[in-house]
Amino acid sequence: MRKNAPVKIGPQTHRSSAISSSNEDTIVVRGRDLCGELIGHITFTDHAWLLVTGSMPNATQRRVLDATLVAIAEHGLVPSVQASRMTLAAAPEALQGAVAAGILGCGSVILGAAQNAGQLLHEVVTRAAAGSLESAAKEVVQEYRAAKRAIPGYGHPLHKTGDPRVVRLFEVAAAVGCRARHIEAARAVERVLPGVTGKQLVMNVSVAIPAVLLDAEFPLDALRGVPILARTAGLIAHLLEEQSRPIGFVLSHAGAAAVDYDGPAPDGFVPRDQ
Amino acid sequence: MRKNAPVKIGPQTHRSSAISSSNEDTIVVRGRDLCGELIGHITFTDHAWLLVTGSMPNATQRRVLDATLVAIAEHGLVPSVQASRMTLAAAPEALQGAVAAGILGCGSVILGAAQNAGQLLHEVVTRAAAGSLESAAKEVVQEYRAAKRAIPGYGHPLHKTGDPRVVRLFEVAAAVGCRARHIEAARAVERVLPGVTGKQLVMNVSVAIPAVLLDAEFPLDALRGVPILARTAGLIAHLLEEQSRPIGFVLSHAGAAAVDYDGPAPDGFVPRDQ
Amino acid sequence: MRKNAPVKIGPQTHRSSAISSSNEDTIVVRGRDLCGELIGHITFTDHAWLLVTGSMPNATQRRVLDATLVAIAEHGLVPSVQASRMTLAAAPEALQGAVAAGILGCGSVILGAAQNAGQLLHEVVTRAAAGSLESAAKEVVQEYRAAKRAIPGYGHPLHKTGDPRVVRLFEVAAAVGCRARHIEAARAVERVLPGVTGKQLVMNVSVAIPAVLLDAEFPLDALRGVPILARTAGLIAHLLEEQSRPIGFVLSHAGAAAVDYDGPAPDGFVPRDQ
Amino acid sequence: MRKNAPVKIGPQTHRSSAISSSNEDTIVVRGRDLCGELIGHITFTDHAWLLVTGSMPNATQRRVLDATLVAIAEHGLVPSVQASRMTLAAAPEALQGAVAAGILGCGSVILGAAQNAGQLLHEVVTRAAAGSLESAAKEVVQEYRAAKRAIPGYGHPLHKTGDPRVVRLFEVAAAVGCRARHIEAARAVERVLPGVTGKQLVMNVSVAIPAVLLDAEFPLDALRGVPILARTAGLIAHLLEEQSRPIGFVLSHAGAAAVDYDGPAPDGFVPRDQ
Repeated sequence: MRKNAPVKIGPQTHRSSAISSSNEDTIVVRGRDLCGELIGHITFTDHAWLLVTGSMPNATQRRVLDATLVAIAEHGLVPSVQASRMTLAAAPEALQGAVAAGILGCGSVILGAAQNAGQLLHEVVTRAAAGSLESAAKEVVQEYRAAKRAIPGYGHPLHKTGDPRVVRLFEVAAAVGCRARHIEAARAVERVLPGVTGKQLVMNVSVAIPAVLLDAEFPLDALRGVPILARTAGLIAHLLEEQSRPIGFVLSHAGAAAVDYDGPAPDGFVPRDQ
Repeated sequence: MRKNAPVKIGPQTHRSSAISSSNEDTIVVRGRDLCGELIGHITFTDHAWLLVTGSMPNATQRRVLDATLVAIAEHGLVPSVQASRMTLAAAPEALQGAVAAGILGCGSVILGAAQNAGQLLHEVVTRAAAGSLESAAKEVVQEYRAAKRAIPGYGHPLHKTGDPRVVRLFEVAAAVGCRARHIEAARAVERVLPGVTGKQLVMNVSVAIPAVLLDAEFPLDALRGVPILARTAGLIAHLLEEQSRPIGFVLSHAGAAAVDYDGPAPDGFVPRDQ
Repeated sequence: MRKNAPVKIGPQTHRSSAISSSNEDTIVVRGRDLCGELIGHITFTDHAWLLVTGSMPNATQRRVLDATLVAIAEHGLVPSVQASRMTLAAAPEALQGAVAAGILGCGSVILGAAQNAGQLLHEVVTRAAAGSLESAAKEVVQEYRAAKRAIPGYGHPLHKTGDPRVVRLFEVAAAVGCRARHIEAARAVERVLPGVTGKQLVMNVSVAIPAVLLDAEFPLDALRGVPILARTAGLIAHLLEEQSRPIGFVLSHAGAAAVDYDGPAPDGFVPRDQ
Repeated sequence: MRKNAPVKIGPQTHRSSAISSSNEDTIVVRGRDLCGELIGHITFTDHAWLLVTGSMPNATQRRVLDATLVAIAEHGLVPSVQASRMTLAAAPEALQGAVAAGILGCGSVILGAAQNAGQLLHEVVTRAAAGSLESAAKEVVQEYRAAKRAIPGYGHPLHKTGDPRVVRLFEVAAAVGCRARHIEAARAVERVLPGVTGKQLVMNVSVAIPAVLLDAEFPLDALRGVPILARTAGLIAHLLEEQSRPIGFVLSHAGAAAVDYDGPAPDGFVPRDQ
């Protein structure tokens, strides 16, 4: 039997992980005894904050994370949900495959914008320091424009005059007493956008979520996980509905009917009539 | 431009979905106004129960769902977490791809057992009706054995003398006043197993979770979604750690080193020494 | 630093893999020197057969595998292709995510039927031994019916009077001189179906592919990989088209428009008009 | 029943696809009759070129694509293959999920470099026009360095003094009479790298593949699909081996054993000894 020497990419040193450990009697998660301190003592939202940051959230932080997860978990038959339901229809033996297919649609264009919008707000707040958010916003937006970068979190194909989730999330943040530096930055960007881009684009949920989370001191780099976690709940609901009230093939039927074939074809070929 | 007539699988009738709808001002989820009634008013766990069942949970139900999600969200560098971290190491540009890879490992062998264990408990409780859980358990286990079906939810490679999460989940259920018919069924199965299979296998978390959820009247068919939702939180935590303290290539290095090549080879070929 | 002892599922013994090994100068695949014997000497189809079976195909086997891969690689905007294109539209930064989403739709209902149909043919041929395929076919189909198992590979929503790919694949097999025991079994099943099921269902490509491959001595258990490999080529073509001539959002638009909301809603709520 | 008006992202116009169409008797792929002109007449590699480009390859092009697919299909227990095998071990009921998990690892760091390396070569060749590849290479590499962009396709953790696949692919290209402008560009980059970066990094297969494919006039934007298609074949082989000679849990066992827990823990907690 020949032994394969493995190939390493990068330096070979011991690595560690600080998330979880266990022995026969005890499971430790982020330093806490899972059974003795966590199960039945904290909520799943507390646990998500703990897993991601290593610390328990205070009451304000938990309420803000709950609000953002609830805000973004579900918005109907969006592309990722349709992809998920069609996948389950074609592969009913594997729910996890259909969930995975839905999560693969949580990319930069729709649900992934929260991370990028958070980065934008972070840059504005950092640039402004103790000074004017308005000028910082103008500078940062101009830099994005010059680099041909889209401004994430503004505009929405449905909620054109205002995304109701934005209003509500800001109310919640105010009610729980968060500071509002990132919320103010988001408003500043909204105000400067017409001057710089020539277009009026109102805030959507993708910038409201990072605004309230950053004001609650949620880590910037963890923002991308929030829409993914939230949407997993929505996807599971849709897939359970798909199992008893299927629409997967109705969706694909309608999709195919909406697209023409405009490639070449052999003489005399006529596509099947509808 | 030629029009493609689409192919339908199954009867062509209108289909409907009852999960969510929206207009320019309002988003409705399971009949509730998302902004007016849900965001800032309910927890993410409430929302998950609502999405999946169509109804809000009562306090007992919320506490049980919270407890089960917290119990199963994280258990270290299990195979699906390793697959996820290795995927991010190879494809850092797409967090959703790494989450999806981790979710694909939530299948029948480890995390998917909750659904099957719930089915087992449901059969025992239904079979027993108002009578003896012990005899019903014996019958059902014997039927599984005769059909060469594994008994899901019993035994664990680490927690051999008792899975601490089982004890704690049952405590929580008792404390919130759930009826305990499915918990009792789970205990009955554990008692009859040695007699039928010749092996002592203690309950693990995969049967404890459905036991307490079914006793809280969570829908049987929705059980499969609970480990998936929970593990998404754990995966996100691991992936965020991977971004700053990577171990993905350490994992693959160690894995490759543990496996020999035992296929044929050209004369004189010697695998690379370690 | 504390050391985690890992948890093992199953016996701990050395395991091996016989597919590939390498050193600084040489890569070995299934015992062959990749650079010296394979690259530039064999086709990708040869390589696929070699990877999967450990042996090089003869000319007949290569032609049959080529024919089946070509037959199944592409069939328009089927559900898995739509899911894939919608995923790329939502997450354009990760082509591999969109390919993965499309592959997740290669499950039991549509593309996965090849494996099950191969199993059916194998049972018929084995049952018949040197005797009558007709009686064996009748027996096996009756057993499937009694167990409420669907008969995989028969019927098709579009090609109702005959799948043209079936005819062509059988021609190719005959032309290259394959024995035809599995093809004959497939025909026998088609003949007995009306008598057993009351329905006339003609062979579709999902049973023709295993028929010709099994007659070419392709391994039964490897059949499930053939549609997956083939469809990867089709998916890549669709995704490249999506990058320059996008239809992902057109597909999702049409899908959403085809489904009604029939859940409850707050008083006065009216979904957005089309 | 209330009708949901769908939300569109982007302009609403008819869209078309030019890849495939069908009616009851005929399937058209890129303008050809699948059954009449393709199945049994062309190889799978021909079909892949046709699907992706819309045209049949000539003999030179087919041989180059075959060579590149064979070169990259398999290289042992690399991270994506390990992720795939671990996923199958945890979810054996869904082969397509395990394939998908492996494909998700075909990202920018390892297998995705082919597209980026092709882009690099394209820039050098375009910049050089009819002139010196050496100066163009120097310019482009310096621009990458100034923008802190990694140079894709150079260096390899195992084949440090030369990737044997590079030599062989260039031999094949020369033998089939390809022009060698992109191969020469790749060599020019290799020559200028030490002067610009201070490091000697030899060409690896990730730049050799686009070099020969671009010289065979394969479309630049389609390069990213080549490693994905090739690796699907390797993944399927590994997964079939996993089904009869499993190593998934051996891999995860070894991985977990290689990583320490360095997070906090309750007093007295000791991780399980190995």
